[in-house]
Amino acid sequence: ELGRRRRELRSRMELLIMETQAEVCRALAALDPGASFSVDTWERKEGGGGISCVLQDGEVFEKAGVNVSVVSGLLSEEAARQMRSRGKSLKAKDGKLPFCAMGVSSVIHPKNPHVPTMHFNYRYFEIEEADGTKQWWFGGGTDLTPTYLNEEDAVHFHKTLKEACDKHDLKLYPKYKKWCDDYFYIKHRGERRGIGGIFFDDVDSPSKEEVFQFVKSCAKAVVPCYIPIVKKHRHDSFTPEEKLWQQLRRGRYVEFNLVYDRGTKFGLLTPGSRIESILMSLPLTARWEYMHTPPESSKEAEILEVLRNPKDWVH
Amino acid sequence: ELGRRRRELRSRMELLIMETQAEVCRALAALDPGASFSVDTWERKEGGGGISCVLQDGEVFEKAGVNVSVVSGLLSEEAARQMRSRGKSLKAKDGKLPFCAMGVSSVIHPKNPHVPTMHFNYRYFEIEEADGTKQWWFGGGTDLTPTYLNEEDAVHFHKTLKEACDKHDLKLYPKYKKWCDDYFYIKHRGERRGIGGIFFDDVDSPSKEEVFQFVKSCAKAVVPCYIPIVKKHRHDSFTPEEKLWQQLRRGRYVEFNLVYDRGTKFGLLTPGSRIESILMSLPLTARWEYMHTPPESSKEAEILEVLRNPKDWVH
Repeated sequence: ELGRRRRELRSRMELLIMETQAEVCRALAALDPGASFSVDTWERKEGGGGISCVLQDGEVFEKAGVNVSVVSGLLSEEAARQMRSRGKSLKAKDGKLPFCAMGVSSVIHPKNPHVPTMHFNYRYFEIEEADGTKQWWFGGGTDLTPTYLNEEDAVHFHKTLKEACDKHDLKLYPKYKKWCDDYFYIKHRGERRGIGGIFFDDVDSPSKEEVFQFVKSCAKAVVPCYIPIVKKHRHDSFTPEEKLWQQLRRGRYVEFNLVYDRGTKFGLLTPGSRIESILMSLPLTARWEYMHTPPESSKEAEILEVLRNPKDWVH
Repeated sequence: ELGRRRRELRSRMELLIMETQAEVCRALAALDPGASFSVDTWERKEGGGGISCVLQDGEVFEKAGVNVSVVSGLLSEEAARQMRSRGKSLKAKDGKLPFCAMGVSSVIHPKNPHVPTMHFNYRYFEIEEADGTKQWWFGGGTDLTPTYLNEEDAVHFHKTLKEACDKHDLKLYPKYKKWCDDYFYIKHRGERRGIGGIFFDDVDSPSKEEVFQFVKSCAKAVVPCYIPIVKKHRHDSFTPEEKLWQQLRRGRYVEFNLVYDRGTKFGLLTPGSRIESILMSLPLTARWEYMHTPPESSKEAEILEVLRNPKDWVH
């Protein structure tokens, strides 16, 4: 009976993941009707597989990817340790731990510098220890990376996420908002990657069912928190200077993803992982200029200030 | 007397570093007379400083930087361990080790896809242990990253480096050529960053004087191994498709530098290090396309083959 309920939750999470992918892809396709998604299904020879949907060089989107994967197999103790952010000890039988990992992840890089980049990821893990105990946890988040600050958009984005959190526990949004600001930190630059959102990892309380319901609310909030912002700005006019600033910010995005992001690092180190799906998060183009500093009081300096000192967007 | 000789070597290495910077900058400026170098001197509040010379958006060079630094201070045991590739144990007094590090490093990204990117770096370290013992070692290398394979250039480049090595010991070129192929390996892609050259680290034998003389020969070979290749191809015509392939290869360059390069990782983790000088190695622009695969038997597939299976260019 417990086994069946667990299996049921696993299938319901799998379903949520698939639905989220379909829903987001549908919304993106509707905004960029000329562009087509390339859809690749792939298998991992160690067990499981995934579906990557990628739109490239569209009218509205420079590169947008939505990836789902459901993989299972055996993890080394070292890999299992790296998987959990809090590094709980896991007892392995013969040094190997049976695991199951599933998730949906997405990065959307629009062309227009007035439309922000958005990232989300919702995932579920199970690991079986030597004595048969199953550890499980959820992780995820949704965050926004604008090239220029638009306060109204920032408030809309955070408010939509807060509402999704508040349905479950009023403590969640403030906690996960701060976790997001702390996680997406480019230490060597002293800047956050973007204006945040929510982020959480290793969540295994109050109960599997309750965490799943919370994750479901977050996943359902992806389209309403982001798509209205794309609709609002996709036809905004922009200057070559604004496009250049976007390219420099794309460079920072690459720095975060390759140097700090735990998911990317874990993926690059995992044998048999699908590199193209992991690096799908990188922008189509990026730029690095030596010693670029925007003038004081410029729109470029305005966003930098917020990336250096995160703000509270909703109370 | 021993102290004086050591100090003398330190000054001679410092001089070599400065001369190499000046010599390379002069050669680059002569090839790209319209472009100007920005020269920044910087100090590290923990001790020492450096000079960064950067040419950006020239006629011939997209981005070319030559950086020297001479820094000293106290290292944590952890940082000292990371500094040595072979991780020798170092005994610290009160957990801190006095050190001195100096080096010249450079990355040159030309505009024309028929002119390869070149990187070199020559460096010297000293660390004083608790009992007063001084450990010292040299590291460095010069390597080439072409967008398209030109066998004649590859042979010229490797031959010039081999000649510099052969003056000191016939075993050095084969050993350091292989070390270079092994070091500049982008594991998640199964590709080397380029067609190699030489690379060595942690070299402390046969004697300080002999290693210095070897490093000097390598540093003097930088201009003759690379500049003739730039001269030969800087006016080659190229297609938009060739420029695009160059941008994709630039993306791989970024992947190597941010994910694997020990120098970059060490720099990003070191408090007080000058980020702009460390990340000067990144190209001005780069590109990532999802699932890009060049057609079989194309010029793009030809270079990929060599990056996947390194060749011996001179015997």
